[in-house]
Amino acid sequence: MTVQQEMKTLTHFIKGEEVAGTSNRFSEVYNPSTGEVIARVPLASRAEVKHAIQLAKEAFPAWKKTSIGKRVEVLHRFRQLLVERQEELINVICQESGKTKEDAKGEIVRGIESVDMAISAPQLLKGEYSVNVGGNINAFSAKSPLGVVATIAPFNFPVMVPLAITSMAVAVGNAVILKPSERVPISALYLCQLWKEAGLPDGIWTVVNGDKEAVDELLENKEIQAISFVGSTPVAEYIYQTGTKHNKRVAAFGGGKNFMIVMPDANLEQTANAFLGAAYGAASQRCMAISGALVVGKDTEQRFTEILKNKISELKVGPYTEQDVDFGPVITKQSKETIIRYIDGAVSEGANLVIDGRNPKVCESSNGFYLGPTLLNHVTPEMTIFKEEVFGPARIVVGVDSLQEAIDLINDHELGNGVTMFTSSGAAARKFQEEIEVGMVGVNVPIPIPVGYHNFGGWKRSKFGEGHMFGPDQARFFTKAKTISERWPDETEDTASSFAFPSNNDAKN
Amino acid sequence: MTVQQEMKTLTHFIKGEEVAGTSNRFSEVYNPSTGEVIARVPLASRAEVKHAIQLAKEAFPAWKKTSIGKRVEVLHRFRQLLVERQEELINVICQESGKTKEDAKGEIVRGIESVDMAISAPQLLKGEYSVNVGGNINAFSAKSPLGVVATIAPFNFPVMVPLAITSMAVAVGNAVILKPSERVPISALYLCQLWKEAGLPDGIWTVVNGDKEAVDELLENKEIQAISFVGSTPVAEYIYQTGTKHNKRVAAFGGGKNFMIVMPDANLEQTANAFLGAAYGAASQRCMAISGALVVGKDTEQRFTEILKNKISELKVGPYTEQDVDFGPVITKQSKETIIRYIDGAVSEGANLVIDGRNPKVCESSNGFYLGPTLLNHVTPEMTIFKEEVFGPARIVVGVDSLQEAIDLINDHELGNGVTMFTSSGAAARKFQEEIEVGMVGVNVPIPIPVGYHNFGGWKRSKFGEGHMFGPDQARFFTKAKTISERWPDETEDTASSFAFPSNNDAKN
Amino acid sequence: MTVQQEMKTLTHFIKGEEVAGTSNRFSEVYNPSTGEVIARVPLASRAEVKHAIQLAKEAFPAWKKTSIGKRVEVLHRFRQLLVERQEELINVICQESGKTKEDAKGEIVRGIESVDMAISAPQLLKGEYSVNVGGNINAFSAKSPLGVVATIAPFNFPVMVPLAITSMAVAVGNAVILKPSERVPISALYLCQLWKEAGLPDGIWTVVNGDKEAVDELLENKEIQAISFVGSTPVAEYIYQTGTKHNKRVAAFGGGKNFMIVMPDANLEQTANAFLGAAYGAASQRCMAISGALVVGKDTEQRFTEILKNKISELKVGPYTEQDVDFGPVITKQSKETIIRYIDGAVSEGANLVIDGRNPKVCESSNGFYLGPTLLNHVTPEMTIFKEEVFGPARIVVGVDSLQEAIDLINDHELGNGVTMFTSSGAAARKFQEEIEVGMVGVNVPIPIPVGYHNFGGWKRSKFGEGHMFGPDQARFFTKAKTISERWPDETEDTASSFAFPSNNDAKN
Amino acid sequence: MTVQQEMKTLTHFIKGEEVAGTSNRFSEVYNPSTGEVIARVPLASRAEVKHAIQLAKEAFPAWKKTSIGKRVEVLHRFRQLLVERQEELINVICQESGKTKEDAKGEIVRGIESVDMAISAPQLLKGEYSVNVGGNINAFSAKSPLGVVATIAPFNFPVMVPLAITSMAVAVGNAVILKPSERVPISALYLCQLWKEAGLPDGIWTVVNGDKEAVDELLENKEIQAISFVGSTPVAEYIYQTGTKHNKRVAAFGGGKNFMIVMPDANLEQTANAFLGAAYGAASQRCMAISGALVVGKDTEQRFTEILKNKISELKVGPYTEQDVDFGPVITKQSKETIIRYIDGAVSEGANLVIDGRNPKVCESSNGFYLGPTLLNHVTPEMTIFKEEVFGPARIVVGVDSLQEAIDLINDHELGNGVTMFTSSGAAARKFQEEIEVGMVGVNVPIPIPVGYHNFGGWKRSKFGEGHMFGPDQARFFTKAKTISERWPDETEDTASSFAFPSNNDAKN
Repeated sequence: MTVQQEMKTLTHFIKGEEVAGTSNRFSEVYNPSTGEVIARVPLASRAEVKHAIQLAKEAFPAWKKTSIGKRVEVLHRFRQLLVERQEELINVICQESGKTKEDAKGEIVRGIESVDMAISAPQLLKGEYSVNVGGNINAFSAKSPLGVVATIAPFNFPVMVPLAITSMAVAVGNAVILKPSERVPISALYLCQLWKEAGLPDGIWTVVNGDKEAVDELLENKEIQAISFVGSTPVAEYIYQTGTKHNKRVAAFGGGKNFMIVMPDANLEQTANAFLGAAYGAASQRCMAISGALVVGKDTEQRFTEILKNKISELKVGPYTEQDVDFGPVITKQSKETIIRYIDGAVSEGANLVIDGRNPKVCESSNGFYLGPTLLNHVTPEMTIFKEEVFGPARIVVGVDSLQEAIDLINDHELGNGVTMFTSSGAAARKFQEEIEVGMVGVNVPIPIPVGYHNFGGWKRSKFGEGHMFGPDQARFFTKAKTISERWPDETEDTASSFAFPSNNDAKN
Repeated sequence: MTVQQEMKTLTHFIKGEEVAGTSNRFSEVYNPSTGEVIARVPLASRAEVKHAIQLAKEAFPAWKKTSIGKRVEVLHRFRQLLVERQEELINVICQESGKTKEDAKGEIVRGIESVDMAISAPQLLKGEYSVNVGGNINAFSAKSPLGVVATIAPFNFPVMVPLAITSMAVAVGNAVILKPSERVPISALYLCQLWKEAGLPDGIWTVVNGDKEAVDELLENKEIQAISFVGSTPVAEYIYQTGTKHNKRVAAFGGGKNFMIVMPDANLEQTANAFLGAAYGAASQRCMAISGALVVGKDTEQRFTEILKNKISELKVGPYTEQDVDFGPVITKQSKETIIRYIDGAVSEGANLVIDGRNPKVCESSNGFYLGPTLLNHVTPEMTIFKEEVFGPARIVVGVDSLQEAIDLINDHELGNGVTMFTSSGAAARKFQEEIEVGMVGVNVPIPIPVGYHNFGGWKRSKFGEGHMFGPDQARFFTKAKTISERWPDETEDTASSFAFPSNNDAKN
Repeated sequence: MTVQQEMKTLTHFIKGEEVAGTSNRFSEVYNPSTGEVIARVPLASRAEVKHAIQLAKEAFPAWKKTSIGKRVEVLHRFRQLLVERQEELINVICQESGKTKEDAKGEIVRGIESVDMAISAPQLLKGEYSVNVGGNINAFSAKSPLGVVATIAPFNFPVMVPLAITSMAVAVGNAVILKPSERVPISALYLCQLWKEAGLPDGIWTVVNGDKEAVDELLENKEIQAISFVGSTPVAEYIYQTGTKHNKRVAAFGGGKNFMIVMPDANLEQTANAFLGAAYGAASQRCMAISGALVVGKDTEQRFTEILKNKISELKVGPYTEQDVDFGPVITKQSKETIIRYIDGAVSEGANLVIDGRNPKVCESSNGFYLGPTLLNHVTPEMTIFKEEVFGPARIVVGVDSLQEAIDLINDHELGNGVTMFTSSGAAARKFQEEIEVGMVGVNVPIPIPVGYHNFGGWKRSKFGEGHMFGPDQARFFTKAKTISERWPDETEDTASSFAFPSNNDAKN
Repeated sequence: MTVQQEMKTLTHFIKGEEVAGTSNRFSEVYNPSTGEVIARVPLASRAEVKHAIQLAKEAFPAWKKTSIGKRVEVLHRFRQLLVERQEELINVICQESGKTKEDAKGEIVRGIESVDMAISAPQLLKGEYSVNVGGNINAFSAKSPLGVVATIAPFNFPVMVPLAITSMAVAVGNAVILKPSERVPISALYLCQLWKEAGLPDGIWTVVNGDKEAVDELLENKEIQAISFVGSTPVAEYIYQTGTKHNKRVAAFGGGKNFMIVMPDANLEQTANAFLGAAYGAASQRCMAISGALVVGKDTEQRFTEILKNKISELKVGPYTEQDVDFGPVITKQSKETIIRYIDGAVSEGANLVIDGRNPKVCESSNGFYLGPTLLNHVTPEMTIFKEEVFGPARIVVGVDSLQEAIDLINDHELGNGVTMFTSSGAAARKFQEEIEVGMVGVNVPIPIPVGYHNFGGWKRSKFGEGHMFGPDQARFFTKAKTISERWPDETEDTASSFAFPSNNDAKN
């Protein structure tokens, strides 16, 4: 886009309407594949966020009172629209995120999985019912939505994370405020149209674009009952501590340093193929991307590195508009520079550059934010590139002497999102599964992300709070329960006061 | 106890041993029924707490590795000891808390209910298992204990709360540090002996006596994975905010202002009997005590107050050593003074003193911290006595014009622990159950505390955090889950790298 | 239809194709609203059924191996087609069953509810996973489909029952053989097209048209793993006893005699409105139709009968093609005659005919199988019309002296499908819910049919076998589970033989 | 026992009392270790069984009304008595069953596991509760006990099976009639005393001793709601078909032919140790005993047989009164003869006798019913000893060429109780777990019996009916559920009749 006047000014989406920003603050939205600005997004003031929250609060009671069956009916229509508009949505995603079409499609399908989980809400929302717990009392639990809940989403999954974090919230009866990443607001605004078309009442799904100012209002506003966040670990920690300081429920998902343990008995060809896609897909900009290989045994390490080297040299980096591209650019120029700094630093700390992707060929003819696949070996746990999450295609190989050493290295790491192992040994897999201190674990699986109907969530500093994305536990995060003890005495029965603490055993039956 | 040298100096209980305090700071333990000091309890320094935590941490891995069956075996023996030693334990409780024997027994029975819930841990600890979620992957979740967890308990249930908060934690494989109230440490130390006798390994159940210094170490020490607290709302909020600031799981249970709605169609005689025990039992020192009646209709209010007045005047206050006592003293002299200040304040704000218990007869011959049952009417929502929890036998009657008004008053209150209603109308009960913003709800039940196998927990400022006491959800609070995706490929299968985000739909089946 | 050559000859649907019958036996399909024959349906021979089963058996393994996610994908598309083709399907239903369009729509919506339950299969299919149950063994359960399962459906819900009974069976991985009622085969064949269009593999949903010969082959064929049946109680019993004699799983749903208890404190106007729709809707041809009112108290009975009389006289009976018709014809001429015999018999046994619907006005101008709404009072428990299910619009009023008497009468009845009560008393509702020996219970609800995500099923002779239609338990009926105990020993560990019976306590941990 | 007059005449246990038999039919009870008669047990007439059922029926309503908490209280005391009287109970078991003390202890511990599961009944008995499923209706399910249920137990676990089959039945509120094996009635009568001492009300646990006459009364009596049976497959099938013919719930557990697959990569020493205990323990008289080894690969087969031969020759057979006995006699002389016939037959069909136990040394000095451990190889699937369950210490080795062949042989067998595999390969274990058509599966586990809190039950002709022993599903077998739809309308609301079929979507919300 070269002509200034074509640049679109985006809006918020409040009470079912596109609403222009009034703060006069904006952020530029880029097409990372070309390096061009494609739109500007308004950054909401505290007052704008407050207003959106207020309208969501007003919409909430009617939605809460709507039966779960009717709510799920909206989800079914929304799902159908996601299927029908898939191609259009892929283009929206690719343009502002730079990912490949195939990758964007994977993200949408995965997002639909979270809608499917939300469609199971009638089952997940059931409380428990006990007959005559003593004294002819029946006891049961009744679940309610929380009210207005907020979600702060990252740039790397413009559609999947918003869906994964809000579908269940909507299904169980809450009103949702989404603050998308200012890098990828167009996808979020597109979803608004689908919700509206699906029949979701105005005010139940709101998009407020913004930056830290908007986030802080969401964190502090007393009408917000729960906050979900997906992003980097330092921000996740800030969100958790600030949200809980305001007595909210918080589920804050941070970064990962996800290792693939390669055992000597693994099929190295298969394992290397698994590594490639899991490590470099989406230019490694996934919290579940494989960050590096922990290879057991010197010989295995050497052979594995060699196989990787050959395969990596054939990968193709480029824009989503081209065929057969393996991955695209990173999200911003700044991000590219950060990743290069990590590579430079690793080399200066003694790592060996097996493949150097700092100046990919595609950059000769494009201003896109491209980086080629980079592989370093001779990496040690003391190096920064081992300790920190690198959100770009610089991956590492670390040699270890034993499975135990691999497990210990991972358990000592402050992050604990995902981990996987390639092996043919049942005993090795069992030891690994049991001892590893990581939330999502794979065995002979490239990316250990669980299927949508199991809980997603890391351990240690990869997740703060008890909530989950995907999975049945999400219904729990977005609801609260009353426990009701009900008795219907005969009018004529004699009673006496009991001053002792009541228990089951007081009753005659 | 009149002879000075009889005063016992208590200890901590660390790694299976009574350990003398080394901080040289002590607190006096009273017999509230006589006003005499019966022991002094050491107040742990930060170093002592750190040491106890370290030993618990060392004991944890072996207990975690012990199968759930063997762990529950210990719980069974512990339960049996609680049954066998009940009489002895009742005396311990009564002496330091002042409650009646019948009430102490009720507390123990209720505590056993929480042990029973813990005995169901093999069922509650089960993860989920899915066959072939795509690509021949099996996905499942495996639950683990957290590590060292801490509990800070209040004075009013010297045995029940420690059991309610720790039994499940122990059963699912954690090491527990209990800091009991410095008012009632003897009961907690008694429980230590039972755990030891039941065969619990040393270090898994620790008692550290102390005050804010100990609490702050527990809140800040990075080895503590989770904190449970039961006490007043301001402290609960402090615990929640401080614990979460250190990224811990926290469940902090605060105070209640638990109303009984009395409908015109209720049997007033039955209702008044229910009110008496629920409101004045244990000298009203229960977070689930009924704080007052919201009576619907002028006439009903008048009649209900009259019936209460007559019944209250027959209540007997005195020491647990006497027969037929309805309730005993409050916990301390300071507590007594606070309660009197609430009554004085209410009168000065315009409330009417129906029954004045500020100078009970029993005080003529005893130095115990007694207060008689007090009833105020003409109380309005603006008065302090309506707004705040009063932890002693001063209860109120508030007249309202309609069920809707009663519900609104309760929903506007900042606390939301328990509530109950007496009525014969199914429609009134349904409206009440649905609209009331309170966590534990009763219908024609004096105290709306759920039976032990349902979740206990209030709403609003009565509970901070998502955890529960009692109930199946406690198992969840004290565990974390890994989600495992497992695949066992045929050695000969062809593979290719996939750079798209993985979803169920990628796989051939 | 008067021109002979227009009559359509229907087919079976086997392995994804319409297959002509080869037995040379046929049954006529009527339009009950006009009395005309609209098609003839082939009646399968044993050999034809065997063949269909064989093809289903061959299709099963691939469907079983298909991941649950991909299977549910088909269900989503099928659901969408049901929504899109609703109008067309309504016409198919009305033409062969005679029900009104509004009623047909209700049936479809309800059928979709059962598809929705099936869409929750990924959640419902989860087994349980326990870590280290002793000796480092992990124990878990893995669920599998059964294989080929058969469903025998009744005429009264041409679409809902087939969906309710087969959707979950399909979702969890079985191959289904449906034998629809020979009265309404066109609807079943229409569903075949939707399944095919949705992408269900050939052979997974089969329709075999037929009569007792086909049924007996399904009951006896050893490849059929489970049988579901919906119909009258005598046939349900036959199906249960014959199916279990061949060691199959059987869930056989029979008839109902579903009473509405009317309490003196009920709003009689509201109650009568509820009675009308619930009792006469669909010409009373529903196993959940209200069969009669048990009215408590002489005066109430009199007033209630009076109100009913006035309201019933305004009901409109006629063909679905007309506007504002309350209900249509019964299914066959024989059925009409049977119902008239019940009315005649009741009168001869002493019942009083409040409203006589034996010769409805509509019959003057139509050959349709119409009956008007009939109401009898002065009915006693000894009369045949009290004891037996009448599948047509002859309903009764029975006076009783107390709630207890009403409960006793119902509990003594051999059928126990549904029951409902109208009252404003919480105590009456509680007593009723607890004491009544009936599977589906309503309070102030016209028809006590549970919502689709709760289990449907009667007690006593209204259901044989443990299975359910609708509800989460259906997933259980259509699957079996393996329990797996898995251990991965260290190669070097010492072992010894244990000759004692193994238990959790043998292991060191 | 040599003195005639010492022989004890046993009784029934009806309504809490020992009741002498009146049929004048008796069966002799042996001590299989000595061959002597130790008691005679009365065989009940139909009239006696009817009487016992009637008294159980009368006891049922009060027990049903007893709260689950109080019922479980009895279970806790019963469990404690089982722990305290363990030594005494071991002697009772050993004397009449011939098993070793260590084995009897294992059986008791396992029985206690089933009591523990029953103690979890408050959790397992919970129904589901849904708020506002449409039209302001709340829908929920309430579970009830069935009434009088019967259990028919085998000789091989005189204590465990009765506990496993009745504890949950009692806990959830049923009245139980146990017909123990006439070979081992003394253990069952001993349990009666413990139940009584634990406080179980009279009539809730009844023992009727008898033979087929008693069984047939239980199967046909209409007051019996459910039947559990454990025994041989032909009888299990008879029980299932006869019980279901009388419309009862039936869970009938039959025999097993449980193979151990030995993979070439297994540690053969460890595997052989596992085989020995699992195959010969309790003289192989367990439905979960390993019947034989399917060894993959010629060489492995040879080596494994050699190792087994050496180890088996060191096994010690003898009476439970001696030290270090590996297993004892079989249950009767007839049983011994049957087993010998199986061995003779196998030899005549071409099997090779590796170890011949037909004339064990212990028989030289004892009249006990001893058989030594027998091993046959060169066994083929066509031989009777492969096809049928042999309830005694004659075990087989079958060589196969591949895992696939082993799986196919097992899947083609008509029995499908248990199976296990020894391997170090994750891929082999996965294939095995997925493809094997057997209900209880082990990997590197000697006997694949699941732990008590998972479901126990075989597939194919090893189990008839959907019920389970042990495990959470047992609670389901012994209860039925009502689904309740409750609505509390405002008195003033307008209503109209709806003649369409009701669905969630009719309601305004």
